[in-house]
Amino acid sequence: MNESHLIKRLIEAFQCLPGVGPKSAQRMSYYLLERNRDGGRRIVQALSDAVEKVGNCKYCRTLDENEICRICANASRDRSQLCILETPTDVHAIEQSTSYKGLYFVLMGHLSPLDGIGPEDIGLDILAERFAKGMIKEVILATNPTMEGEATAHYIAEMAKDFDIKPSRIAFGVPFGSELEYLDSGTLSHAIMGRRDL
Amino acid sequence: MNESHLIKRLIEAFQCLPGVGPKSAQRMSYYLLERNRDGGRRIVQALSDAVEKVGNCKYCRTLDENEICRICANASRDRSQLCILETPTDVHAIEQSTSYKGLYFVLMGHLSPLDGIGPEDIGLDILAERFAKGMIKEVILATNPTMEGEATAHYIAEMAKDFDIKPSRIAFGVPFGSELEYLDSGTLSHAIMGRRDL
Repeated sequence: MNESHLIKRLIEAFQCLPGVGPKSAQRMSYYLLERNRDGGRRIVQALSDAVEKVGNCKYCRTLDENEICRICANASRDRSQLCILETPTDVHAIEQSTSYKGLYFVLMGHLSPLDGIGPEDIGLDILAERFAKGMIKEVILATNPTMEGEATAHYIAEMAKDFDIKPSRIAFGVPFGSELEYLDSGTLSHAIMGRRDL
Repeated sequence: MNESHLIKRLIEAFQCLPGVGPKSAQRMSYYLLERNRDGGRRIVQALSDAVEKVGNCKYCRTLDENEICRICANASRDRSQLCILETPTDVHAIEQSTSYKGLYFVLMGHLSPLDGIGPEDIGLDILAERFAKGMIKEVILATNPTMEGEATAHYIAEMAKDFDIKPSRIAFGVPFGSELEYLDSGTLSHAIMGRRDL
């Protein structure tokens, strides 16, 4: 092979990024080396800081470099509501909708007995301690509408009831701005089953 | 904003990669932090090594961490042929075809008077010194078939003639395995003008 050892190693390393194959990795490597070494240095700095310093918030388990993330630390959030999510990006998505002012709890996954992922692996022991403190009145289950997400939501709903906390599930139905014609039948049957009186 | 400062900085840094917008940068950042910190560390190491240590080969100007790249250092290559290319990736492409055993010279660009890129910016002073040494018998111009690439090839061909070196241009025509029906007219007119007697 005629490629320099270091360039080859860089092309290989970039391929661990999602959606990046050998061709894009090569393009990225040569682009940075030929035309944007400062950009390369910025990635090195930002990535090494993030990988070494970002941990999980001790209350909600989301990714953050502080022991307590800025949402959990924000005194103006409603501490009686707790929204349960699968990943930190879900927090980001809900925050962007600006329709929720309570706190979050991030499972960093979902129950999946076949893969050996049980309650403790998704932090449900920590969640139970949190439930026991008595601050939370409502738990909003916003796991994904997949088999595992539903099972996880159901499991946590049962836990919540044991602590006299009201569980609720986010609404599933027709997304805003979409056309019925193009929706899958699962979404449509949810929309019909979950219809509300007007 | 609810995203951690370090994660936000990482998402911004990834956006300097070609073809990576805010959404893919976010996906890459969370993927590395949630599921593949080792991959993240590998990128940091490989990228910082490459950005700091990869320079240009002193003979052919291609990217390499050694002062002399492995092609220029390879005693079995034909030193009488010199193939002129625009970028290091072009070297890679021609090497993969395994049809060329001479040496290379990488311009790292092309002449472009409008952008202020003159002969010295693409190393033609170094190339002239090389021509003067008298080892080279043929110069193969493999710049791209664009306006700038053609002008650059023409300029170097004139230089070569001054040193009694035979200039040649790579063939343009119908790519192997393609169908005439789908080729652009520029390629087809090159293929007809460049026809050879059988």
